[in-house]
Amino acid sequence: MSPTIPSLAGKLGGLQSSAIRDLLKLTVRPDIIGLAGGLPDAELMPRERIAVAADAALRDSACLQYTESPGWAPLRAVLAERESARLGRTVGLSEVFVTHGSQQALSLLAEVLLDPGALVIVEDPAYVGALQVFRAAGARIVAVPLDREGMRIDALTELLERGERPALVHTVSNFHNPGGVTMAEHRRRELAELAQRYGFWVIEDDPYGELWFDRPAPAPIASYSHNVIRLSSASKILSPALRVGWLVAPDAVCRGVELLKQGADLCGSALTHQITADLLADESWLAGHVDSVRTAYGARAKALVHAFRATFGDRASCTDAAGGMFVWADFTDGTDTADLLPRALEHGVAYVPGSAFAVDGGYRNSLRMCFTTSDEATLTEAIDRMARAVG
Amino acid sequence: MSPTIPSLAGKLGGLQSSAIRDLLKLTVRPDIIGLAGGLPDAELMPRERIAVAADAALRDSACLQYTESPGWAPLRAVLAERESARLGRTVGLSEVFVTHGSQQALSLLAEVLLDPGALVIVEDPAYVGALQVFRAAGARIVAVPLDREGMRIDALTELLERGERPALVHTVSNFHNPGGVTMAEHRRRELAELAQRYGFWVIEDDPYGELWFDRPAPAPIASYSHNVIRLSSASKILSPALRVGWLVAPDAVCRGVELLKQGADLCGSALTHQITADLLADESWLAGHVDSVRTAYGARAKALVHAFRATFGDRASCTDAAGGMFVWADFTDGTDTADLLPRALEHGVAYVPGSAFAVDGGYRNSLRMCFTTSDEATLTEAIDRMARAVG
Repeated sequence: MSPTIPSLAGKLGGLQSSAIRDLLKLTVRPDIIGLAGGLPDAELMPRERIAVAADAALRDSACLQYTESPGWAPLRAVLAERESARLGRTVGLSEVFVTHGSQQALSLLAEVLLDPGALVIVEDPAYVGALQVFRAAGARIVAVPLDREGMRIDALTELLERGERPALVHTVSNFHNPGGVTMAEHRRRELAELAQRYGFWVIEDDPYGELWFDRPAPAPIASYSHNVIRLSSASKILSPALRVGWLVAPDAVCRGVELLKQGADLCGSALTHQITADLLADESWLAGHVDSVRTAYGARAKALVHAFRATFGDRASCTDAAGGMFVWADFTDGTDTADLLPRALEHGVAYVPGSAFAVDGGYRNSLRMCFTTSDEATLTEAIDRMARAVG
Repeated sequence: MSPTIPSLAGKLGGLQSSAIRDLLKLTVRPDIIGLAGGLPDAELMPRERIAVAADAALRDSACLQYTESPGWAPLRAVLAERESARLGRTVGLSEVFVTHGSQQALSLLAEVLLDPGALVIVEDPAYVGALQVFRAAGARIVAVPLDREGMRIDALTELLERGERPALVHTVSNFHNPGGVTMAEHRRRELAELAQRYGFWVIEDDPYGELWFDRPAPAPIASYSHNVIRLSSASKILSPALRVGWLVAPDAVCRGVELLKQGADLCGSALTHQITADLLADESWLAGHVDSVRTAYGARAKALVHAFRATFGDRASCTDAAGGMFVWADFTDGTDTADLLPRALEHGVAYVPGSAFAVDGGYRNSLRMCFTTSDEATLTEAIDRMARAVG
């Protein structure tokens, strides 16, 4: 007699393999230019510097042992120093918790902060990794739209004034995935003030903040309120294979996360934590490295945006190439991007239709394009192919 | 207004910081011989071989990118080959799933296989990391005692005949943590037959199987039934800093685990997966390395058991030094090991009282001793100190 596997529908928050996901599996074909991915460029990762750090760490067997659940202490010390500088206040060691990428920070925080049925406010379009986590936690999800200045705080205020009482608000404040926009400074202050007034948590999810092209993003929302939990990651500036994300949160939240981390996977890797600490502490090297990533991504983003605007003119609009990894575009001529996708693949270009990021449906005329892993000429060719597919 | 943090009691399964845990925090004092830990010996980990593998992996930037959620494919191929040899059947690539240590395998499997209220049968004394996970999943937990031949299948059969219908049965089949015993071959067959007859899952949690001292453990329970999900890990034979555990399960279970892994932390580290694959595929080196760990641990275990038996004679009994990392002992003279602990610490020796592993209370006269990180003379001295504490 075979045992059963219970339905995972509830636990997955309904985010199962979709038709779009199946179509996009085709995009690893070498003849297709991939704007659909969401990966940083491995060629820009500091392979040789990581090799030096690995070699140094491996001179002592301490890096091979289990480490503390909140992360290897010297890594937390480096992160506390960096976050102190960013937030303009002293961040204590007990406020820094290292996770297995910032996706794990999201998933543990959802467990710590949310009772089933709790209200979570997300941005629309949304980071689907966050949506999945909040849905799996049994949260009730309400979306607030983005505009060019990030989350529409007027819409959030309206919800609060109507009596909605969120347990938490999730925002990708810098160079939004998928929306491409950055929250304006005045909105950051307003969001922090609302969090204080109504007593909710804000998760400021910030994996892309250091990847600005022309000017740095405004100060973090977390610099305005202790109700804001800041998430960041080494994945986009160093390498996702380090599996180092972190959160900065009040001590009580970190202790809750710690207890859950023990059940989830005990601890992170002392080896990759030590490598990451070495690289992050090497300030002048790091500044030069991040600058080289910014320069490369900036050139690619500008080429993509230029080609898109030159090609589609009034028929579509797209976000500026200001930072991060993504450009979001909207067709204004009624082009349905999910319908277009099979034709685009035939013409040799892949992207993600906007509907894949919609919280309650919509974004049928939108798309997300990732510019990180193709050079400028290839990105220009991608837009040519897209134009031929649109016809 | 400060936001609230909901009670974590339900989510933690009641396993919060206890008095015992607080006492054991003292045991990092250098004047205390630690038998309380549960760590492998970092000095026996193959530091130089790992450095060579890291250097080789880091010649190509591919090891720095995100990897597939089920794990880096070449690592899964090596694991499939090893598990095929162990299970005596061809294990397919889609049946192998790499997790962030085998604790993550447990936690994802609990989510995939258990609806709230499902019955889980565990061994008593229990591996507390499993208890925590099953309690957090909202399972109803029933314990079956261990004896010298491992889980008492007669007691399990009685439960089943009384009408209990478990969703899963968890067992640490080899060199049990904390119980020190190994399930006898005939019980493995019987357990597999019961799983088939009644249609439940067995999780065969096997981190210690390769650490046998005199003779290998019997064939895995998973070699007798497809209802058995096998868990193992590189943590005890190579290094926990690789954060490589794995499960072998039917494809449908692996696909459920995959969807949940994406929400939990996206994927593992391509770098540590590649290092692990390199070491596991280097068969003759690996055989020699594991043998050296067996030899060292075996000598330590035998010294501890010898000293314990010579010292306490009829006043206590303990398991044989057959493999793994732990010896379990029972005082037959009424000594209460939780009461004894503060006195033992004063005399400079730490251990974990049996009650810390009890599912429903009990084991007040028992203790767990870990022999991995002290040499033979130190272990003998530890038992001397314990004897002085007992008085």
